[in-house]
Amino acid sequence: MRLSPRHPRYRSLLVRARLAEAMRTGLVVPEGLIAQGRAEAFDYLLGERTSPSARRAERAAAVWLLAAQAPVLSVNGNVAALAAAEVAAVQRAVPGLAVEVNLFHRTPARARAVARALRRAGVRRVLGVRPTARLPGLPSDRALVDARGIARADVCLIPLEDGDRAEALRRLGKRVIAIDLNPLSRTAVAADLPIVDELTRALGGIAWEARRTRRPARPVRFDAPRARAEALGTIARALRRASHRPPRRR
Amino acid sequence: MRLSPRHPRYRSLLVRARLAEAMRTGLVVPEGLIAQGRAEAFDYLLGERTSPSARRAERAAAVWLLAAQAPVLSVNGNVAALAAAEVAAVQRAVPGLAVEVNLFHRTPARARAVARALRRAGVRRVLGVRPTARLPGLPSDRALVDARGIARADVCLIPLEDGDRAEALRRLGKRVIAIDLNPLSRTAVAADLPIVDELTRALGGIAWEARRTRRPARPVRFDAPRARAEALGTIARALRRASHRPPRRR
Repeated sequence: MRLSPRHPRYRSLLVRARLAEAMRTGLVVPEGLIAQGRAEAFDYLLGERTSPSARRAERAAAVWLLAAQAPVLSVNGNVAALAAAEVAAVQRAVPGLAVEVNLFHRTPARARAVARALRRAGVRRVLGVRPTARLPGLPSDRALVDARGIARADVCLIPLEDGDRAEALRRLGKRVIAIDLNPLSRTAVAADLPIVDELTRALGGIAWEARRTRRPARPVRFDAPRARAEALGTIARALRRASHRPPRRR
Repeated sequence: MRLSPRHPRYRSLLVRARLAEAMRTGLVVPEGLIAQGRAEAFDYLLGERTSPSARRAERAAAVWLLAAQAPVLSVNGNVAALAAAEVAAVQRAVPGLAVEVNLFHRTPARARAVARALRRAGVRRVLGVRPTARLPGLPSDRALVDARGIARADVCLIPLEDGDRAEALRRLGKRVIAIDLNPLSRTAVAADLPIVDELTRALGGIAWEARRTRRPARPVRFDAPRARAEALGTIARALRRASHRPPRRR
């Protein structure tokens, strides 16, 4: 499909084309495309921009990562396909940040494909390709992690994660930063710091905030229920406005 | 993946598994999986049930189809993968209803696969496998239709249709019944009768209403802007309730 940059939904069509291609190469699984569709719907309702509340969450996330002893960024197929460059930018901005491959539908070939996509974008030292530890309380291969990464992390940044894993990390006492466009999802609810924003904007925002946070950082408090309520409020206002307005091109 | 019927999201997981399988066989394209994800998000916000307003729309759709001179039901890959049995049920309940294959990403092989899935479910006389006419105002292969079907139809039932085609059908003076879970989409806005409900529930509802409409039907008026406003109201209320409630398993 040819895409014109002048098309009103160019960016969203580009993302779709990129994911469809990533599926053909095995990086992304069909379930990942459906998850992308769910995310698109919520982003559409949020106006496809970073809210002031999400911006505050990204700032707090940068401080948490910088203040952590062993911070980890967990990467699945969709994240590698859509935001490998942003993952590299966050790693550059946060010294000591480990990046770990973490797949819901894991095969050795997919794990290698994810690691390859990350390295190509400039990510250094990718963990999790050959898992060496397990998280208690999770079924089978979804429990697999890297002993040098998520297993010993104190702060985990988990973009597009499923609810079971988010809750398992939380039970282990890790501080969980989630990126999830559905403020009602179990992942967003389980997180200590839910960022309700689109993946590339959220990671880009965290990298930007981390670069400008110079002085030795200390953790800041974050009001997670309030952040989720603000996201719901943004959606509710958008729906009210939209019902009085001619429709957007879709 | 094994699915337990006791899983709280069994039905939605089943649908995902079915679509993923349909993608592997070529019936569904990657873009169709993303569209499914968008639909899931809206259905989730609508409480995953048919609202009284959607029920009224399905009743009106049944009357419109029964009163039509040349009614057509348009079927794409997702519809064939998810609701072939419901398409057959609507055809049984509406005498003279034509069923036409109508693909955004058309190849002869996909058109045949869609027709095969429909016939296997009991649909008789599938049109559109070899297109014989064009709709004015649409680019390339998206304009292709069957001279015996959509080209001469007075009432078109278009589940999961894109906005360009919905608007093109409307411009040709056809009465358009859409099934679309996003009440703000261009398809829902273009339709004379937008049904804001999940695909299988909507088609099942239309079939049920058509079976119990015995006397010779005449068209009934339908207030489309009101139906869309009611759907937005349902979502807004669900968001308000959800913000005061423990999260659902997802």
